[in-house]
Amino acid sequence: MRKLTAARLREILGAGEILGDPYRSVTGVSPPEEAAEGDLTFVFSKKWLQSLPQVRASVVVLPYIEGLTPPSSATYILVERIEESMIRLLSLFLPSAVTLREGISPMAFVSPLATLEEGVRVYPFAFVDDGAHVGKGAVIMSHVFIGRDARIGEGVLLYPGAVVYPGVVIEKDSIIHAGAVLGADGFGYVESQGRRIKIPQVGKVRIGEKVEIGANTCVDRATMGMTVVGEGTKVDNLVQIGHNVKIGEHCAFAAQVGISGSVRIGDRVLMGGQAGVADHASIGSNSMIGAKSGIAGRVPEGAIVMGSPALPHRLFKRVQGALTKLPEIVKRVRTLEKALERMKDERDGY
Amino acid sequence: MRKLTAARLREILGAGEILGDPYRSVTGVSPPEEAAEGDLTFVFSKKWLQSLPQVRASVVVLPYIEGLTPPSSATYILVERIEESMIRLLSLFLPSAVTLREGISPMAFVSPLATLEEGVRVYPFAFVDDGAHVGKGAVIMSHVFIGRDARIGEGVLLYPGAVVYPGVVIEKDSIIHAGAVLGADGFGYVESQGRRIKIPQVGKVRIGEKVEIGANTCVDRATMGMTVVGEGTKVDNLVQIGHNVKIGEHCAFAAQVGISGSVRIGDRVLMGGQAGVADHASIGSNSMIGAKSGIAGRVPEGAIVMGSPALPHRLFKRVQGALTKLPEIVKRVRTLEKALERMKDERDGY
Amino acid sequence: MRKLTAARLREILGAGEILGDPYRSVTGVSPPEEAAEGDLTFVFSKKWLQSLPQVRASVVVLPYIEGLTPPSSATYILVERIEESMIRLLSLFLPSAVTLREGISPMAFVSPLATLEEGVRVYPFAFVDDGAHVGKGAVIMSHVFIGRDARIGEGVLLYPGAVVYPGVVIEKDSIIHAGAVLGADGFGYVESQGRRIKIPQVGKVRIGEKVEIGANTCVDRATMGMTVVGEGTKVDNLVQIGHNVKIGEHCAFAAQVGISGSVRIGDRVLMGGQAGVADHASIGSNSMIGAKSGIAGRVPEGAIVMGSPALPHRLFKRVQGALTKLPEIVKRVRTLEKALERMKDERDGY
Repeated sequence: MRKLTAARLREILGAGEILGDPYRSVTGVSPPEEAAEGDLTFVFSKKWLQSLPQVRASVVVLPYIEGLTPPSSATYILVERIEESMIRLLSLFLPSAVTLREGISPMAFVSPLATLEEGVRVYPFAFVDDGAHVGKGAVIMSHVFIGRDARIGEGVLLYPGAVVYPGVVIEKDSIIHAGAVLGADGFGYVESQGRRIKIPQVGKVRIGEKVEIGANTCVDRATMGMTVVGEGTKVDNLVQIGHNVKIGEHCAFAAQVGISGSVRIGDRVLMGGQAGVADHASIGSNSMIGAKSGIAGRVPEGAIVMGSPALPHRLFKRVQGALTKLPEIVKRVRTLEKALERMKDERDGY
Repeated sequence: MRKLTAARLREILGAGEILGDPYRSVTGVSPPEEAAEGDLTFVFSKKWLQSLPQVRASVVVLPYIEGLTPPSSATYILVERIEESMIRLLSLFLPSAVTLREGISPMAFVSPLATLEEGVRVYPFAFVDDGAHVGKGAVIMSHVFIGRDARIGEGVLLYPGAVVYPGVVIEKDSIIHAGAVLGADGFGYVESQGRRIKIPQVGKVRIGEKVEIGANTCVDRATMGMTVVGEGTKVDNLVQIGHNVKIGEHCAFAAQVGISGSVRIGDRVLMGGQAGVADHASIGSNSMIGAKSGIAGRVPEGAIVMGSPALPHRLFKRVQGALTKLPEIVKRVRTLEKALERMKDERDGY
Repeated sequence: MRKLTAARLREILGAGEILGDPYRSVTGVSPPEEAAEGDLTFVFSKKWLQSLPQVRASVVVLPYIEGLTPPSSATYILVERIEESMIRLLSLFLPSAVTLREGISPMAFVSPLATLEEGVRVYPFAFVDDGAHVGKGAVIMSHVFIGRDARIGEGVLLYPGAVVYPGVVIEKDSIIHAGAVLGADGFGYVESQGRRIKIPQVGKVRIGEKVEIGANTCVDRATMGMTVVGEGTKVDNLVQIGHNVKIGEHCAFAAQVGISGSVRIGDRVLMGGQAGVADHASIGSNSMIGAKSGIAGRVPEGAIVMGSPALPHRLFKRVQGALTKLPEIVKRVRTLEKALERMKDERDGY
């Protein structure tokens, strides 16, 4: 393991103030609650800023705060932009997932009718079919399947077991995690006399640039035309994206979200885990969909919605608050009815 | 790309009336909103029938309507059965997922104790274990695993990475999408002193004829006996079907549905996405289960239910409608109580 | 198929009383509703104990009950511990998933820089990367990927297509089902001007001893530190476990559960299917989370909660009961308001 001193870390950051011994070194990185001697950590939550003396790391990177004095066991690096600094320094500890130094494993299958640009690495047991095109520096790990005429952009990283059906397009610098399936048939049938007849799914999938697709996530091919995931959109694990869905740019969808066929989603939309969207729904840009929400119809731009069926989040919270009072309300209504009945009876002289 | 004239398309359909130039040709197919010159499209939604002049396709197939005149850029083909016509013509544009022309790749592993009937195609890196039997014309794509004594019917198509555990049976003409897992152990344990002891899962899975199993869907083997998916049933992606479940014929389950152990489901049951069914529940034929519903106990034949816990759909809609009024109702009950109190006080002369 | 007599089964159990012909034999095992001649079955549900004469099995194992007389077609074995007996006898019928008798297939790829202890079996098309360590007797089936420096414990069973990212640790005797992905990147980004910048995910995953991970389940690597699944915990299919989650011992999570980042879960926690847990939530030991529940914040030790947002289960049931009355309550409140209005009007002499 490589040793890095606080001075070296500050140098890599290009900015920041060191408090304590600049020659103290680290060999690993941990979250504050797990950090031990020899670890680097980052502190920016209120909770941990208030408990700084309990952080056991040797080097702590944190935002500028007046009047801090590190304990003798730690060196502090005060920085302007804690999140940027964290990203910069974490990358030093990133174990490369890619061990294959270069070239195409003789244990892979690459069709002579496929085109691979320079610097492509193909692991043992990967399969690349006729007519596929793989851009410069892309990495195709073991058990990846790339179907006929698929196009894999420059620098794309396909983790083990990812499946790219024929004709699917992945733009440059996207990351596809293990077991993701891009381009399986959309779920489209015509009913006839109680049976379902398959509608041929002749469309494709296009994954934009710098997209990340989570492990075991599925993006179905369009019936006709394209299913699209826009540039910079991040999709977590086990998500379903149905046929003909169009997703804009820089969205983020948490795990187990389900998006039915022909849904339209704008840019920078956030969805919480296990949210579901009914077919043909339309979701405006900059909106936020709460975890477990059920969406149908139209969500306006910038809206924040929750619940199933989804409500504007303020209404949702008021409804949820009222809901726990409901059993009591039922009783109180009964009591009111009786009281009123009694008053009427009294008035009428019974 | 192959060119197809309107006249040729009509000939393939065997019926239909051409309006406009019968020699206009198409090379692709698109949905109406994306269609451009050179495309075939199909119009049958009310929305698009009303916006026909905005459809940019060269050839438009649509239902018989009186008095239509195509613009000079388009040829119309009027048909009796638009959905059937669409299925027929789409199939002309279907890119075959299967490129392997014939035989068993020398880069596959097929046990000498397995039996493969004629016309079976096995892709590189597929694994077929001892005692497995694969029927005529079945296609086994890359990274498929077929366990010991499994039986794969005639014409079955196993997409890349599908896993068939030992002893699983798939009847003819079924399609298993990428990453689907058939026959993993059911989730069965006996608790003993706060620990869980595994119940050996010795049963099997039977997938009926013409079934479609979506990508990354899991169907668990029975503890004893069989987990069954009936003929013609279509299952979308990322669905969980637990041990000992029995599913009837011609059902359709949308993505991310979860069906717990020992559930019984009749024929032609439809389930919306992310619906969940508790163990030992029983669902009658021809019923419809709304998206995100939570089912326990018994759903009668032909019922339409929604919500979690599920309610008959009319009641569900009324409850949901009332729910948004709940915060106000709480206030109104309080107001009523105060008003009544005041009236009593007045009456009593306070 | 091997024949086993009732006498032999009793001998294997080491205890139990035989009623009927001790030489009656079985060749298979089935649940009571499917059992036929030649089958062994187990009866312990109330329902089937009351319908014993309808059970068609040749040998029935059941709890001690006074005064039973088997029909001429069946032999009964009465036992003290029906569940233990079932586990013991079912294991006799377990078809081994593992056919590879020994060694490392020449069709696998095992890095010369990996260490495999004795008795490890590696199937064709498995991939074991540099620095990986595989313990005694572990089984690595086809299309398994084991990343750099991963550690696989003694006796671990990795089913086809399981993916172990670099650095992941699996302790001994754990079972990882097909398509499970251990160690994919956590879903961590920093937002900057409407875009998401990836936080390098440098942490690891540790799967404890005797854990079972279901098919296509995902356990993400920590951003820093460890994502942990504790000893004896059983996780069903299609479950998501986010980065930095810590799960205690002997928990059981049903299919499609979703656990967001940094969640803390105690020991012996049970979760029903499709339950979801928001990030940073904390769930006490011995608690039970109902199916489809949505958890945020803190669940105390031993609590039973349901619903989304989750409520204590008694309150949840009362709220659900009251909910169906809500549309009527809205009407009754309106009626009360009118009645009160009328009374006031009358009193005021209108």
